[in-house]
Amino acid sequence: MSQPALTWLDELRTDYSRRSGSVDSRVSRRSAGQTVAYLAGGMPDPRDLPRDSVIEATATALEREGEWALQYGAPLGEPNLTEVLIEKLARDQGISAGPENLLITAGAAQAVALATRLLVDPGDVVISEAPTWAGAVRRFSVYGADVREVGVDAGGTDVDQLEATLKDLEAEGKRAKFIYILPNFQNPMGVTTTLERRRRIVELAAQHGVPIIEDDAYFDLRFDGEHVPSLYSLDDSRTTLYMGTFSKIMAAGIRLGWVVASPDVVTRLAGLKLDGGTNPFASHVAAEWTRNGSLHRHIQMLIENYRVKRDRMLAALEAHMPEGTRWTRPEGGFFIWLTLPEGADAGDVARRASQRGVEVIRGADFYFSDRGHDELRLSYSYPTLDEIDAGIEILGEEIRAALR
Amino acid sequence: MSQPALTWLDELRTDYSRRSGSVDSRVSRRSAGQTVAYLAGGMPDPRDLPRDSVIEATATALEREGEWALQYGAPLGEPNLTEVLIEKLARDQGISAGPENLLITAGAAQAVALATRLLVDPGDVVISEAPTWAGAVRRFSVYGADVREVGVDAGGTDVDQLEATLKDLEAEGKRAKFIYILPNFQNPMGVTTTLERRRRIVELAAQHGVPIIEDDAYFDLRFDGEHVPSLYSLDDSRTTLYMGTFSKIMAAGIRLGWVVASPDVVTRLAGLKLDGGTNPFASHVAAEWTRNGSLHRHIQMLIENYRVKRDRMLAALEAHMPEGTRWTRPEGGFFIWLTLPEGADAGDVARRASQRGVEVIRGADFYFSDRGHDELRLSYSYPTLDEIDAGIEILGEEIRAALR
Repeated sequence: MSQPALTWLDELRTDYSRRSGSVDSRVSRRSAGQTVAYLAGGMPDPRDLPRDSVIEATATALEREGEWALQYGAPLGEPNLTEVLIEKLARDQGISAGPENLLITAGAAQAVALATRLLVDPGDVVISEAPTWAGAVRRFSVYGADVREVGVDAGGTDVDQLEATLKDLEAEGKRAKFIYILPNFQNPMGVTTTLERRRRIVELAAQHGVPIIEDDAYFDLRFDGEHVPSLYSLDDSRTTLYMGTFSKIMAAGIRLGWVVASPDVVTRLAGLKLDGGTNPFASHVAAEWTRNGSLHRHIQMLIENYRVKRDRMLAALEAHMPEGTRWTRPEGGFFIWLTLPEGADAGDVARRASQRGVEVIRGADFYFSDRGHDELRLSYSYPTLDEIDAGIEILGEEIRAALR
Repeated sequence: MSQPALTWLDELRTDYSRRSGSVDSRVSRRSAGQTVAYLAGGMPDPRDLPRDSVIEATATALEREGEWALQYGAPLGEPNLTEVLIEKLARDQGISAGPENLLITAGAAQAVALATRLLVDPGDVVISEAPTWAGAVRRFSVYGADVREVGVDAGGTDVDQLEATLKDLEAEGKRAKFIYILPNFQNPMGVTTTLERRRRIVELAAQHGVPIIEDDAYFDLRFDGEHVPSLYSLDDSRTTLYMGTFSKIMAAGIRLGWVVASPDVVTRLAGLKLDGGTNPFASHVAAEWTRNGSLHRHIQMLIENYRVKRDRMLAALEAHMPEGTRWTRPEGGFFIWLTLPEGADAGDVARRASQRGVEVIRGADFYFSDRGHDELRLSYSYPTLDEIDAGIEILGEEIRAALR
């Protein structure tokens, strides 16, 4: 959907630049069914959506707690969801939190938006990994942030660049409002920030008095290796905001995420949450679904499924990519990041692949500045194994064609 | 919950005044069960919540449309919910809208917040009925609006005051960003704006180039008389934003509302909706629940139930209020507005009644300025008939005590 022509709205105010939200329909779920291979959006596998167990959990939740599920919600989120999340965070993430540390949000998406609204005035500096989640690019833009980019490589956040950026800001007499990091199976690169680098990030943040926003949407979907401690748990200063979501481990349509932070931050964020409270109906269903063990079982199933898909895509890339193409090897999550051989334009390749029914996203969409023209994001979460093979084969052909 | 003490947040920015959100726990649903009579919040009757039909609709929706219900949502809302709402608006409200005119939101609460964020910068003027919905008072404050109050009487919005306010603004060289009106069974007064006044509001708004926000949360709950045409349908200039919600006619916990507006406004509002799309799970359940006739049947049942409760509260007021007390006689909705005899302080009365287990809300909470000290809002939606009797009797005693 393009930006609409303005009529009477124009007369009412001249400066829309500070609220330049536009509807993002580039990654349209509706188009996903019409393709040879949809390798674009970060959408969960539609064949894995937990219909039956959600129907069951809904019946139980409404029979037991119908009044609270159908009535107005509590300011920080439904207490029974908070309770099961506190258990889950302690057991899986190794994060110890009390109810006063937790705010339930409409997905991690809303959590990032609220934190940005709380901390950022137009022109304020934000430090972000780049490339990063396209939704963050949009949210920081809507709130008018001056984003300073810090690179990402196979070991995660480039901490030397982070240090240099913080020093530059100090020289400018500015302090960033936060540092935005996706530590695990980063969107879009699929890489994980090493423990050593995590320690350094926390140290640098404390030294410069800048809070960290740790967006950990993919944490539970680790296929290989061991979990690395979160920035939140490494941060003794307690200024990190840790964010998670049910989107990838239950259903994106349930729109539930969370922030773990100090009680003062949680209360402030809740005060800006002007949607009448996070959906109590969905919250009670998710709480029951977690409580009865469905979440744990579903995560195990997803790990098995996505691991096979990742392996299939890596094998297809080996088989079909021309020499000089490079890609990441994720230990979890949904994404592989492709760097094209010199001379190929990612925008052209994405367009030509799309004409043949293969949807990928050009790297430029994940940067704040004008970069990423030789990069593409591939997602193995949504397509079938056969679609992965077919899609990567066509993509390889189009990259070869672009090189000629 | 009080405003928290700030620590490191303080260091990051000095001006929190522009985002002075605080969590509103005054009207706590959790306290509702512990009272003699909870006449405070605008909460639907817990005995009328449609548990069984929602369980049934969930099963059908997930079996039929599970993929879309559990996947990321469409930017303007789930198309099947849009479709049933367009039918409902045409049939019941007499509002003709296409999909491009409709944005599904997390309750009307989020719709009001989005419109305010779109149009209002700190210091901008907004015209609002006063008293009005406490949530609007909070939202306009969070966005730093300079609110000009227009009174409400038994015939609804005071249009002479509205005209005077618009002229004053013109003299100041200012133009209001919008006029906020609750035309039906107004919260908190329970009154309905007459057709003649509605025509005048629309005329004045067009003359001064100011859009109208029409918040029509209680439309369907009319017990007596005929529906009055909406401001939206009277407005040929198409600058009115019409807002509605499932909160009062299905369940507040489902968190679904809508805005009907011109396509440019709808797209702009959607661009500011940074929560990843309105809950697809809840949307598909509500769409199925509407489609299968449950909504229509439920509204008929609610009208019968709430009419009896209104009549019971009016009778109890006749029986127990001291001379000099006045109250409104609503034709629908949830609320009766009480004006105390001279000499009684509403804050005192509310506190003393609360100590005896009767919860009401002092009038001052529904104004932007320092007014309403002799007024109280009573809600008959939540309590049982016996609780209404007991609550009004105690309230009458406390008003008498305050007069001595």
